[in-house]
Amino acid sequence: MTDGPSGYLAVDSGGSGLRVAVGVPGGPPSAHGESKEPVRTGARGIDPGHLLEQLLPLARALSVQAGLPRLDTAVVGAAGFATLGDGLRAELPDALARELGVRTVALAADAVTAYVGALGLGPGAVVAAGTGLIALGTDLVRWRRADGWGHLLGDCGSGAWIGRAGLEAALRARDGRDGGSASLLAHAEEAFGPMPGLPGRLYPRSDRAAALASFAPRVASCAAADPVAAGILRTAARHIAESAAAVCPAEGEPRIALTGGLFRMGDPLLTPLEEELTARLPYARRVPAEGDPLHGSVRIAAALAAGSLGLPGDDERMLQVVGVARN
Amino acid sequence: MTDGPSGYLAVDSGGSGLRVAVGVPGGPPSAHGESKEPVRTGARGIDPGHLLEQLLPLARALSVQAGLPRLDTAVVGAAGFATLGDGLRAELPDALARELGVRTVALAADAVTAYVGALGLGPGAVVAAGTGLIALGTDLVRWRRADGWGHLLGDCGSGAWIGRAGLEAALRARDGRDGGSASLLAHAEEAFGPMPGLPGRLYPRSDRAAALASFAPRVASCAAADPVAAGILRTAARHIAESAAAVCPAEGEPRIALTGGLFRMGDPLLTPLEEELTARLPYARRVPAEGDPLHGSVRIAAALAAGSLGLPGDDERMLQVVGVARN
Repeated sequence: MTDGPSGYLAVDSGGSGLRVAVGVPGGPPSAHGESKEPVRTGARGIDPGHLLEQLLPLARALSVQAGLPRLDTAVVGAAGFATLGDGLRAELPDALARELGVRTVALAADAVTAYVGALGLGPGAVVAAGTGLIALGTDLVRWRRADGWGHLLGDCGSGAWIGRAGLEAALRARDGRDGGSASLLAHAEEAFGPMPGLPGRLYPRSDRAAALASFAPRVASCAAADPVAAGILRTAARHIAESAAAVCPAEGEPRIALTGGLFRMGDPLLTPLEEELTARLPYARRVPAEGDPLHGSVRIAAALAAGSLGLPGDDERMLQVVGVARN
Repeated sequence: MTDGPSGYLAVDSGGSGLRVAVGVPGGPPSAHGESKEPVRTGARGIDPGHLLEQLLPLARALSVQAGLPRLDTAVVGAAGFATLGDGLRAELPDALARELGVRTVALAADAVTAYVGALGLGPGAVVAAGTGLIALGTDLVRWRRADGWGHLLGDCGSGAWIGRAGLEAALRARDGRDGGSASLLAHAEEAFGPMPGLPGRLYPRSDRAAALASFAPRVASCAAADPVAAGILRTAARHIAESAAAVCPAEGEPRIALTGGLFRMGDPLLTPLEEELTARLPYARRVPAEGDPLHGSVRIAAALAAGSLGLPGDDERMLQVVGVARN
């Protein structure tokens, strides 16, 4: 075996690609890398071969760059892991042991790495939101999750939800139905062209949720002057707080954090959201997210190396730690 | 040219196939036929070749069966005609003239044939609803339409809308979020299996709207005992009435009719809907739909043969009448 300090490999696999860091447990990453190609999802779920194809060269290059020839611990947080992670569970631990000499592998849903990135290893609740939305909470005994069901079944309050509601209000204005907004109609025509062509352009797309979410910032931009847009954001804030309340520990003084691109929308969403959170969870303490999901993977790696994970790890859809024999 | 009385050909092309009737104008159809294969939609919209392939043999057989060798007038009502009808407009009139000797062709959106089937040639408003929902009204000067934007952008109050809202309430119960319904959750698990598998099964389907709508009858079945389900139907009723109000003539004593499979849901929907319609359109008279869209095509054929259509025909997305030279 190679001499030198023992390192970790931390991974965040999401809709915009793969982000990777290596470092010494307990310290910040010594080197970062990324691949812009999102890992494919096939009939078996997230494709472990496609993930490894991108991850292994990156991991090897970063371990050289960081002067960390041994990567004892690997933590992989992946979008879709809960429902589409069977292939990763089956193949990733052995492949990382064989190819990189890893001894301990943790596989996690991206909601878990988002949680740990935002709040660390303590109890609390995190809402992670962008195009979609999921809330995750723990009292350190078990995980609770809410929503994350996708743009047709839920993701209530997400970017796709806000954008969809904004487009409905635009079309209500066009039809002369109640609940319409002329300013959202003007924005919708600017963004998507004449409305009669919108269904024909939207429905065949495979990225319908992202297309809907692309309209959300325009809803926010109208909110100051347009009561319909403001009402959409108020309702979104209520739905987000409902998800937070469903997962937040009922005892103690839990912390709550918000993470993800949705919250860059700023005051038009955050002002009503703070009000809704205060009303529903007066005993919880709002804190800023400390870091992102990659930071969550780094923190989990440090905790594993120190033998002190302290998070519920018995739910294989959320977080699974596997010790592997080194070849 | 063949001797004998001059007949009409009436067609209703929809999601479940092609229904065809022939008869003598002013009388009921002498013969009916149908093809269960829905007309394909391709890059050019509704495929005229695929429609003709099914329609011509049926029309020839029915004209023989009815003893009507001359079919002077053809009326084709087609789902999707407003936005996907370019191919039909370009090819159908000449093809029907060439193949069947037709002299006058009317092409119509299925909402128009639904309107005329339900209310005849007078002013009023019709809501046509099943998986989707559209409202159409006229003062005989112009058509007004509302909604019909599809399950992501609108179709508010439709079967897909009610089913989607019911599934959201089921998942809210599962998550412990506000607005959940345990009885809808039990129904959802019975209909779709364990909820964690639902997104993976629903999102890849090409018939997502129909899949959502398949849950609507279960929402209705829960409404008597479950306030969440009853609330969904009350909101659906409000949305349906909003669409009716947006298209109903503001003057006179217009008639309003409801047509389509959604209204077979019965009292759980119809009771709140009658209340909402009465509140919004107190001056309008609720009447039962007199007939279905095929009946609307038959009525338009009779009116064209009598030279007295009397409906706005200048909007080529709604209704277009073409005189064609007989070969």
